[in-house]
Amino acid sequence: MALVVQKYGGSSLESAERIRAVAERIVATKKAGNDVVVVCSAMGDTTDELLDLAAQVNPVPPAREMDMLLTAGERISNALVAMAVASLGGEAQSFTGSQAGVLTTERHGNARIVDVTPGRVTDALAQGKICIVAGFQGVNKETRDVTTLGRGGSDTTAVALAAALKADVCEIYSDVDGVYTADPRIVPDAQKLDKLSFEEMLELAASGSKILVLRSVEYARAWGVPMRVRSSYSNDPGTLVAGSMEDIPVEEAVLTGVATDQSEAKITILGVKDVPGEAAKVFRALADAEINIDMVLQNVSAIADNTTDITFTCPRAAGPEALELLSKLKAEGGWENVLYDDQIGKVSLVGAGMKSHPGVTADFSEALRDKNINIEMFTTSEIRLTAVIREADLAEAARAIHDKFQLGGDEVATVYAGTGR
Amino acid sequence: MALVVQKYGGSSLESAERIRAVAERIVATKKAGNDVVVVCSAMGDTTDELLDLAAQVNPVPPAREMDMLLTAGERISNALVAMAVASLGGEAQSFTGSQAGVLTTERHGNARIVDVTPGRVTDALAQGKICIVAGFQGVNKETRDVTTLGRGGSDTTAVALAAALKADVCEIYSDVDGVYTADPRIVPDAQKLDKLSFEEMLELAASGSKILVLRSVEYARAWGVPMRVRSSYSNDPGTLVAGSMEDIPVEEAVLTGVATDQSEAKITILGVKDVPGEAAKVFRALADAEINIDMVLQNVSAIADNTTDITFTCPRAAGPEALELLSKLKAEGGWENVLYDDQIGKVSLVGAGMKSHPGVTADFSEALRDKNINIEMFTTSEIRLTAVIREADLAEAARAIHDKFQLGGDEVATVYAGTGR
Repeated sequence: MALVVQKYGGSSLESAERIRAVAERIVATKKAGNDVVVVCSAMGDTTDELLDLAAQVNPVPPAREMDMLLTAGERISNALVAMAVASLGGEAQSFTGSQAGVLTTERHGNARIVDVTPGRVTDALAQGKICIVAGFQGVNKETRDVTTLGRGGSDTTAVALAAALKADVCEIYSDVDGVYTADPRIVPDAQKLDKLSFEEMLELAASGSKILVLRSVEYARAWGVPMRVRSSYSNDPGTLVAGSMEDIPVEEAVLTGVATDQSEAKITILGVKDVPGEAAKVFRALADAEINIDMVLQNVSAIADNTTDITFTCPRAAGPEALELLSKLKAEGGWENVLYDDQIGKVSLVGAGMKSHPGVTADFSEALRDKNINIEMFTTSEIRLTAVIREADLAEAARAIHDKFQLGGDEVATVYAGTGR
Repeated sequence: MALVVQKYGGSSLESAERIRAVAERIVATKKAGNDVVVVCSAMGDTTDELLDLAAQVNPVPPAREMDMLLTAGERISNALVAMAVASLGGEAQSFTGSQAGVLTTERHGNARIVDVTPGRVTDALAQGKICIVAGFQGVNKETRDVTTLGRGGSDTTAVALAAALKADVCEIYSDVDGVYTADPRIVPDAQKLDKLSFEEMLELAASGSKILVLRSVEYARAWGVPMRVRSSYSNDPGTLVAGSMEDIPVEEAVLTGVATDQSEAKITILGVKDVPGEAAKVFRALADAEINIDMVLQNVSAIADNTTDITFTCPRAAGPEALELLSKLKAEGGWENVLYDDQIGKVSLVGAGMKSHPGVTADFSEALRDKNINIEMFTTSEIRLTAVIREADLAEAARAIHDKFQLGGDEVATVYAGTGR
């Protein structure tokens, strides 16, 4: 008998019909002899509808009240799933994040889990009950206020609960049936992976793959919780994310896949004095404004005037704020100019096999050259290559790299409708 | 400076626009120098929509999960009102029933408040904050499960909080601007009352007036909390419900108004043996099924066979269950027959002045006789007369009695659109 944590995304719960289908899967898992804990996102568009209402009553709603508002969405889906399980003869009990012992920092809207004390869940499991826990939410231990975990928070709830309960697996259900070698909507012959390591999944998530939220994979890796990505529309076993890259024998290490990202913008500062501390000023200003930067590139100094250019990427949503901030610092820093470009795209190749494949960088560059695609920035990690190119070239670049490294299969991948949360 | 508790019903909160209007009233009350605690119902049709979803996933949803589901509605309106108050510069903080210390019995769906420990609300008030409390919900102290208070629960929350906080007044806002001498939709010249006693309001509520829920008035009377019924659409001072009938000088005691009720059904058991304990069997069976009975009438025994007939009324919603129950007992009790009638209506005249008005019963009966309306059952209390008649005659009966006792005014009453919760 195993302890299984299952997380269902909003698209899997978008209607009463879908909720009944999810309940059937939950009850079947229980009847197969497992203990089952379920984590639910809000139904379909509920969160967007609540955000819309909030915007109508207050353009800048207080974060504490926003959390109180948004957590209602998960309470609704949670209670409905518990009811649906009960209608199939399962003994279900729902829990809010607070009732399930999800304790967080006090940062409303983007809290972090600091501890999980699931005593009530453990008791209910011992009584043979199926436990349904509201995702995305917790409670601040000091103030007893309700908090939310930010984007993808339900995945994080599921992994954290799985870790606290020492679950055998944390299954993440959405409308895709696994992790693919590329986004099948862009690369039609993309193949589903049976298994990949935490490190590879982390690199894919950091490179734009939306299938799992980075934070939940970090948590799963830290606590050694195997994750399984599955579709709530099929019985396909999906993709297992588990184990360390270090444990993969060299001869089995492969290239995992291609990821694309069009959520970033590029900012270039021209004519920065090439003396110690100048670059730090830039990044301190951005950090103080809580703007995350991703890739950074600093060219060698121009001999003529001893200045350099700094280029970095940041989330496109934060781009205008970053530009405004740096434009104000321009005179102070004596910079020549600050340039902004939000028409960029990032294409990455990820895989533990990269270490043992000589010439990967050359093949990657040549694949883009053959399509006449210019590389504007280029970075690498131990198991990843990333190029910044024009956004309009992104799909073609992904297909070219996928082909070059023979990641495709003979079959065209199945793509399900809808998008997960 | 006064401490004012304001309760807003669902129709007052049915849209972002209405929520902003409510927020303006709240902030104005605070600016006038009062401490303000606000209790919110769920927005407009939210509760019905949630009930509909529940019915789709489980025709007989578990009561605990139903409470978890329904309380989401008040959390949503609560957070939105707090945001709207903040957007007007007010310092607002929202509280769930649990956070506000509303402790209840464990009976899901119809819990009773056993204690209110509003320590967090008191602290927030001391900091000058406007406190927004989710109505209709509490928490069971033993199991820490969320409970709901049943129909009109938000009114009860408001009165209980007002009592615990020793508030100066509990204002109940909906889409009607006070308590009238009759339902203005039935009796066009019905007049708004400036003030009435708790006892009179209790009798009106028990006789079918829907403006205040019986339980909330009982609570207010027990704790001596003055209630004021007001409209969220106007600045009319509304109707004050306060004080005991005993304190009204005889010369000022008047007839308060006419109430109608078409929510009941009538059941008659024919041929019940007229020996001690036979009637008790009937009422014990109904009590065990948690069916409330209202009026009871037992005719004198027929000399011929020493049997009697028992007639009573009960909520129409429970009628079929009561009929089935009694039909099963028919053979056992040796009864002749059980008759069911759900086409009845109740018309009542209420007022402390009844005690000092001789001939009220005669005038009441004659008013109905003059319209050729037959009285099927008749009961009285110290300050109330009630007749059961045909449902189809109800409106005409109300107008006739209202006229007979000259309760009307020269003006036609204002009727606002919509219905409160």
